[in-house]
Amino acid sequence: MAGFSFALSFCSIFLFAITEASRCSIIGLPLVRNISELPQDNYGRGGLSHITVAGSLLHGLKEVEVWLQTFSPGSHTPIHRHSCEEVFVVLKGTGTLYFAPSSHEKYPGTPKEFPIYSNSTFLIPVNDAHQVGNTNEHEDLQMLVIISRPPAKVFIYDDWFMPHTAARLKFPYYWDEQCFEAPPVKDEL
Amino acid sequence: MAGFSFALSFCSIFLFAITEASRCSIIGLPLVRNISELPQDNYGRGGLSHITVAGSLLHGLKEVEVWLQTFSPGSHTPIHRHSCEEVFVVLKGTGTLYFAPSSHEKYPGTPKEFPIYSNSTFLIPVNDAHQVGNTNEHEDLQMLVIISRPPAKVFIYDDWFMPHTAARLKFPYYWDEQCFEAPPVKDEL
Repeated sequence: MAGFSFALSFCSIFLFAITEASRCSIIGLPLVRNISELPQDNYGRGGLSHITVAGSLLHGLKEVEVWLQTFSPGSHTPIHRHSCEEVFVVLKGTGTLYFAPSSHEKYPGTPKEFPIYSNSTFLIPVNDAHQVGNTNEHEDLQMLVIISRPPAKVFIYDDWFMPHTAARLKFPYYWDEQCFEAPPVKDEL
Repeated sequence: MAGFSFALSFCSIFLFAITEASRCSIIGLPLVRNISELPQDNYGRGGLSHITVAGSLLHGLKEVEVWLQTFSPGSHTPIHRHSCEEVFVVLKGTGTLYFAPSSHEKYPGTPKEFPIYSNSTFLIPVNDAHQVGNTNEHEDLQMLVIISRPPAKVFIYDDWFMPHTAARLKFPYYWDEQCFEAPPVKDEL
């Protein structure tokens, strides 16, 4: 019985390793993919469902990346900035964009608030601090998110008055951690 | 009466000029935009409805551009290639992707055909010849299209056996013509 159990554990680990490897490999992926069959996870962030629809680490893109994200009522992104362009297309629900275009100041400051809604779109210029949240009590907020310069290098603020220079770099970002391979260390003899 | 008619014509031209100018200016555009209120046109291509959701010439983006396109039954893109990445997200309908990744050959050659469908996604690597069409007889095909390196510089083929070197550059592309300003000619004294 112990032997069987051991074999089962071994197989589980082996299968897990294969699954993880294939999840991060573009080899054998079909050209046309069903989005509902792509990996979906909250990556440790409550209220979030994230799918990388077309990505750098997952699908070999170098210039753009597309995400499908769903925020449950009350959930939101961190306050953050990134040195890439970002476009949002709201597919379902309503919410709020908090926007503080202040990279020339010392800190973001009190953001302006903009209602976002189904079939609306907005873009975030490079390095402008922002946050997007589902401020509807009842309905999910679903958006397609497009970024340039993948994979995302995100600077996170604790609050709107944290200096830009104190924002923490999160790289690789939550959904890129699993498939990120650090570049090989050069032999510096 | 003739004077009134002249004044009316003058006003029409004046208003048209203002509308055209404001359509190509990012000044005064709201940050969050209702996609259903954005300019929509077929730009001379039968069966197409194109909306630039977030663009280079219209909205000041430099690294990505997002289109919402609807193809009526039987309509399709030209056979073409471009030196940028492209991601499609199918929102409604069904159709066919024709794909000939053959930039190392002399011409695209017979393409492979892939069915595309609602909630599917596919990406076109840089410079691979392709065509997307609504091959459904009854239903519109609606897609979000994302490109890098805007505005689009598109090389069009008459057929799949036209040499790559004979494909014709269409720049600015159909929906960019109205707002495209050629870079000023340098004074080469």
